[in-house]
Amino acid sequence: MTLPPLSAMSLNITSLHAAYARGLSPADVLREAFARIAAADDPAIFIHLRSADAALAEAAALPPFDPAAFPLWGVPFAIKDNIDVAGAPTTAACPAFAYTPAEDAFVVARLRAAGAIWLGKTNLDQFATGLVGVRSPYGVPRNALDPQIVPGGSSSGSAVAVARGLVSFALGTDTAGSGRVPAALNNIVGLKPSLGALSGSGMVPACRTLDTISVFGLTVDDAWTATRTACAFDPADPWSKPIPMPALSAAPQGLSIGIPDAASLKVFGDRVQAEAFAAATDALRDMGHRICEIDFTPFYDVASLLYEGAWVAERMAAVEPLFRADPGVFHPVTAQIIGAADRLSATDAFRGIYRLAALKRVTASAMAGLELLAVPTIPAFCTLADLAADPIGPNSRLGTYTNFVNLLNLCGIAVPTGPRRDGRPGSVTLLARDGQDVLAAGLARALHRQRAPDMGATGQPLPPAAQLAPQALVTELPLVLVGAHMAGLPLNPQVTALGGRFLAQARTAPHYRLYRLEGGPPARPGLIRSEAGGGAIDVEVWALPLASVGAFLAAIPSPLGLGRVELADGSKVTGFLAEPAGLAGAEEITALGGWRAFLAAGAG
Amino acid sequence: MTLPPLSAMSLNITSLHAAYARGLSPADVLREAFARIAAADDPAIFIHLRSADAALAEAAALPPFDPAAFPLWGVPFAIKDNIDVAGAPTTAACPAFAYTPAEDAFVVARLRAAGAIWLGKTNLDQFATGLVGVRSPYGVPRNALDPQIVPGGSSSGSAVAVARGLVSFALGTDTAGSGRVPAALNNIVGLKPSLGALSGSGMVPACRTLDTISVFGLTVDDAWTATRTACAFDPADPWSKPIPMPALSAAPQGLSIGIPDAASLKVFGDRVQAEAFAAATDALRDMGHRICEIDFTPFYDVASLLYEGAWVAERMAAVEPLFRADPGVFHPVTAQIIGAADRLSATDAFRGIYRLAALKRVTASAMAGLELLAVPTIPAFCTLADLAADPIGPNSRLGTYTNFVNLLNLCGIAVPTGPRRDGRPGSVTLLARDGQDVLAAGLARALHRQRAPDMGATGQPLPPAAQLAPQALVTELPLVLVGAHMAGLPLNPQVTALGGRFLAQARTAPHYRLYRLEGGPPARPGLIRSEAGGGAIDVEVWALPLASVGAFLAAIPSPLGLGRVELADGSKVTGFLAEPAGLAGAEEITALGGWRAFLAAGAG
Repeated sequence: MTLPPLSAMSLNITSLHAAYARGLSPADVLREAFARIAAADDPAIFIHLRSADAALAEAAALPPFDPAAFPLWGVPFAIKDNIDVAGAPTTAACPAFAYTPAEDAFVVARLRAAGAIWLGKTNLDQFATGLVGVRSPYGVPRNALDPQIVPGGSSSGSAVAVARGLVSFALGTDTAGSGRVPAALNNIVGLKPSLGALSGSGMVPACRTLDTISVFGLTVDDAWTATRTACAFDPADPWSKPIPMPALSAAPQGLSIGIPDAASLKVFGDRVQAEAFAAATDALRDMGHRICEIDFTPFYDVASLLYEGAWVAERMAAVEPLFRADPGVFHPVTAQIIGAADRLSATDAFRGIYRLAALKRVTASAMAGLELLAVPTIPAFCTLADLAADPIGPNSRLGTYTNFVNLLNLCGIAVPTGPRRDGRPGSVTLLARDGQDVLAAGLARALHRQRAPDMGATGQPLPPAAQLAPQALVTELPLVLVGAHMAGLPLNPQVTALGGRFLAQARTAPHYRLYRLEGGPPARPGLIRSEAGGGAIDVEVWALPLASVGAFLAAIPSPLGLGRVELADGSKVTGFLAEPAGLAGAEEITALGGWRAFLAAGAG
Repeated sequence: MTLPPLSAMSLNITSLHAAYARGLSPADVLREAFARIAAADDPAIFIHLRSADAALAEAAALPPFDPAAFPLWGVPFAIKDNIDVAGAPTTAACPAFAYTPAEDAFVVARLRAAGAIWLGKTNLDQFATGLVGVRSPYGVPRNALDPQIVPGGSSSGSAVAVARGLVSFALGTDTAGSGRVPAALNNIVGLKPSLGALSGSGMVPACRTLDTISVFGLTVDDAWTATRTACAFDPADPWSKPIPMPALSAAPQGLSIGIPDAASLKVFGDRVQAEAFAAATDALRDMGHRICEIDFTPFYDVASLLYEGAWVAERMAAVEPLFRADPGVFHPVTAQIIGAADRLSATDAFRGIYRLAALKRVTASAMAGLELLAVPTIPAFCTLADLAADPIGPNSRLGTYTNFVNLLNLCGIAVPTGPRRDGRPGSVTLLARDGQDVLAAGLARALHRQRAPDMGATGQPLPPAAQLAPQALVTELPLVLVGAHMAGLPLNPQVTALGGRFLAQARTAPHYRLYRLEGGPPARPGLIRSEAGGGAIDVEVWALPLASVGAFLAAIPSPLGLGRVELADGSKVTGFLAEPAGLAGAEEITALGGWRAFLAAGAG
């Protein structure tokens, strides 16, 4: 079996690991990556490039290829230059601010421990203040797809490096949308995790209460692999929290997804963007999800707090000594934005916090009954010419659908949805509640594959993806339902109200007996294991949040209970069983093969 | 049966409801309360007294006595004058600020709907800023026990009214300790609930992110009854949260309680206070709790943030228009404190928030493994003379053990622990994590009864108290354990690690069979209902947090499960059952009557 020529190979992790499994060497991949960086001919992507020798030495020291133990084995990545790497300068795109840390940032250390190899530190809007990518003394990275449009920021270099195929993935940061806007502008995936999921230890803060490290990838699988590898509780970061990041399973089904209604959708005149967004939401609807139009005004009200309200003072808190000592070393636009903090009193800060608390109640009401929101990642495109004419207005507009997210403690993932009618990249961001990253990522993966755009600016299609089994999350209990709790039956709302979700049809091992218990309505089944005789019974497997199991169990009456039910594949899954002593007056219906067959027989 | 003379009767709710049950009329009680208010001869307790006619008319309109439906039926109470009552002026002890609301505060409306009758609005340190009770243009309420010492504040009038037996209970507010310090100084109970438990709708804010309405009572039962009646989620208050407030059950057992170690206990030279605190912690130890000495320095560091840090700006936010228009209408000390906000920038505010976040990590570590903290409510006493000499220092010292509490999102209850050696009142505050109000109150009730001081300044003993059954909280699942999960046995740590707690020994109904299942170690029992024959089996009932049940169930192997077990009293409680089909190789041990008997027989 021959390997594809390296020069034609995508560096996405799936393809890279498949090639490593067939004998490709990381040294060859690193040499190729450095060659591509040189050939990219854009000195504004990286602020600091690692020496190839150092990277190759690290590759040579890798343990044997074992992607289960080292999920990022031999994977080259880039790091936004507001995140520390031991021994390399951190500039935050402000040379006067630069320092050389002795230690890797917490997240960088975890990625490297998993086998990833860093190649360089990438350019950004200075101090991660901006969504455009032009506010840097290190130049403006060219947009990977169209040199007329901005690269997006603040994580400009990281997004362009991934989109051009120079690295497999890259770290960004995200406070107002810096991990999502450049993904939309460069046709890649941008994953902004729940606040606290990725430690901020070793990151230069922008707004410390709203910041998170983020991940850019060519595919959702790649972004998810890097994110869950980087994710761990860090007691040294006061904002770190335990956030569930299980392996992705099959796409969630039957979700309710909120989108801006026609009156509140903002595209600033870009009708093509509105069309592209409508096509993407149609795709979600075609996948079986419920699309609910809601008034987005309160979300925009939250967004306006970020720069017009008190949070700009957090940016001052991050840099105040340098700002007081030498404001001239700041980019003029950055200095103007940060300097606005001096007009804000502590009283103003608390008034902003009060206003946000009140708006959170309004947005929570708007999101009631919805699992996700879907928004255009950006409302419209922004060219370098637009920005030369007005350095602030177009930047603000780019944050229309991103600024409110961190203030509301949502997580999100920006995912390409294929080229618009004019060829520019389409992108939708799926937003979920804090801790529900896996839900947003699972749906984003399905949407990305359904739309199947080329990856970034590489011209390459998405790699073949593993078929993922439907499985419960680590925060869920898989639960075998046998009767009236199954989908569409009278007690099913008890399951869904507690956050239960359907996983799969299944059948028990062939040694169970099924009864219709005395009593009701609703009629209830009793399932009993019977080594002698019996049959296989049709059941459903659902996933119930672990935290809801107590409330569910408390409502189950005698003679029913929850034990282990053996399925046809031999697995033993928690599910409904009945006590044999409770069968007085029951009718055996094993021969019908399941509760739905019993109902269909008209006996229920 | 004759009623006691009204003039000798305590107005505590337990005694009052016992008398109502025997025919006493609320009108007589209200007339007695107004007579006591007149006889108290202290015009500084109330800022606004309700007309007796209006109160009597409300009493006349009460439905028939039914304390289950109306838990505060006919109960007279007072309201701190920073909480709205429809039609009565709210002054916050600042006449220039006064307004007359059209609606009751959310909490007041709930109390009145439960049958409580308000008698007046009480004095306070202006804008609830202070812990002394002297910063008011409406005079200084006399301390109920000793006119030389301060009444305590800011809820001065409410605490004195309860301590002198003028009302059954009173509402205070608590930001820095205003619901606890005056309780300690007047020998009564002061309950400061978890933030968000009692809605702030209709309350004049002090520090909106840290405020809560609080309750003063003569007994823990009274304070708890009023608090849980007032508690409900209020969507109109952005800080309102659902907080569990079940009925109190038997005192919690075997808790780990942190106290300041000798090096960090602060009493400012008041050795008698240190002695009294040691006696109270000895009492807790004698009740079977584990007392753990910890370094309190990080808690004091948090406390210092409240007035030295940015939160004083919240006080400015609450009154800024009036402060700018006419600072001369403020009490001079209050004006000085609030005016300090003008030296604080928004950047300072966020720096304070960062410092608090970092300290929360330190205090959380200090509290690891502890269910509660116990502290002296006040470190030392403060006389009117002390305060005349220095209006700020002694006030600050009073907050030593209260200032950190709301910043750390703890709940607490101050409870009298009997007179100190010098006759002054002893008081301990029990502090618990957010939402654990019932734990702190349950222990406070037991401690109060164990120390059995007279109530307030009334000279009356605590009323006889109902013996409370051990029962699961609404947030817990009662769970029948049969074998190795029981107390002290090998799998019991699985239960306690998930927050399980022992409730009671019990026995099943007399138709179960018990088996020793094949396999192990550990040996496991199988309990099976058997209508024909069988016996009663000794079991234990535990309470497991509902949120933990999923994790517990996920670890239970086949052929065991959780169903309903019928106990000797006929109740059916969730508990361990076995599948009959899993009994291959099992040994029946029903005749031994339980798993412990089986183990004692040496067969395990």
